Amino acid sequence: MSSISIIGTGNMARTIGARAIAGGNTVEVMGRDHSKAADLAKTLGGGTTAGEWGTAPAGDIVIVALLYDGVVPVVAQYGDALAGKVIVDISNPFNSTFDGLAHTAQTSIAQEAAKVAPAGSSVVKAFNTVFRHILEKGRPDVFIAGDSAQAKAGVEAFITSLGMRPLDVGGLKMAHWLEGAGLVTVGLANHGVGNLDFALGVTELPA
Amino acid sequence: MSSISIIGTGNMARTIGARAIAGGNTVEVMGRDHSKAADLAKTLGGGTTAGEWGTAPAGDIVIVALLYDGVVPVVAQYGDALAGKVIVDISNPFNSTFDGLAHTAQTSIAQEAAKVAPAGSSVVKAFNTVFRHILEKGRPDVFIAGDSAQAKAGVEAFITSLGMRPLDVGGLKMAHWLEGAGLVTVGLANHGVGNLDFALGVTELPA
Repeated sequence: MSSISIIGTGNMARTIGARAIAGGNTVEVMGRDHSKAADLAKTLGGGTTAGEWGTAPAGDIVIVALLYDGVVPVVAQYGDALAGKVIVDISNPFNSTFDGLAHTAQTSIAQEAAKVAPAGSSVVKAFNTVFRHILEKGRPDVFIAGDSAQAKAGVEAFITSLGMRPLDVGGLKMAHWLEGAGLVTVGLANHGVGNLDFALGVTELPA
Repeated sequence: MSSISIIGTGNMARTIGARAIAGGNTVEVMGRDHSKAADLAKTLGGGTTAGEWGTAPAGDIVIVALLYDGVVPVVAQYGDALAGKVIVDISNPFNSTFDGLAHTAQTSIAQEAAKVAPAGSSVVKAFNTVFRHILEKGRPDVFIAGDSAQAKAGVEAFITSLGMRPLDVGGLKMAHWLEGAGLVTVGLANHGVGNLDFALGVTELPA
């Protein structure tokens, strides 16, 4: 079982928190508005605590559950409070037409977060190809990318505790292409699949 | 059933040609070296013909089965001979470390091919997320992207005739992200999956 902290008190924080508790993990939530974090902790139950914004998270794995443009500033704001932590970026920096990323350079929110994260921390991209309502109840494949094998092993154990299948796609540079896979997922929902009741994943197909 | 032409005489040309014949389609192959095209036509059988390089293809759907750096020059070389055709780009322009594309701009071989393709033609990206040996025998999901609904409908019918499932991800700008999904597929083979016996696809997961 993992000890996780969730930065954010919105829908994704609630969804991941609920599954984390159901999976037997220890959960802390942190919000700019402490009363919202306290409310969410109460809603989640299972011993969830509410931490103070900007202080060292209690969890070994810190999931940043914010809109994409909040991720890098908040990692920078936390600064050394994140030393030694595994920081998980779940964001999707989509443009307004859902056919490109908000950053035109070949980077990702995860890579940018890694640039401002403190020494000894490690950033992992995860969960961004899975729609929230599938995360709520489904058992999807969860793609992850990161440069630290140890950090990825921790995130994989956490994902497995949620009843989902973690699938490593490589180093943190691949986070850019996972953000692209997020766009492909939305494209499938709007075109070839036509609904949201699916996940991108791996199908075993012996040749 | 579709009438297709395949530009190229390599492994991908042979694999797609064989499945196309098995699916009851009419197939023409075209090679710079006409004798190689003639040999491949004979190998494929089922009435496969060998066309003259650079002349108007017999098929309505023209699959460019070349290494990625050959696609745009050859579409340009064919020029008006491709008028009215649906041009299918299947290429994967990977960098040498398999974590980025050969082009750093947010484009794709498919989009670049569209720039040099003649009026009345339409480019569709397809097949690039499927390993060749899976194309040989498997029944994978095949992601496609393109700006023409009519062109995509034609390619979808062809893919369906191969026993595979076509899944539209949107306009041609999405070809860039399908090339990224190709990188994700290779990343999965090298990391989370650890072998090549799978395809990226869609798993229905009612929430």
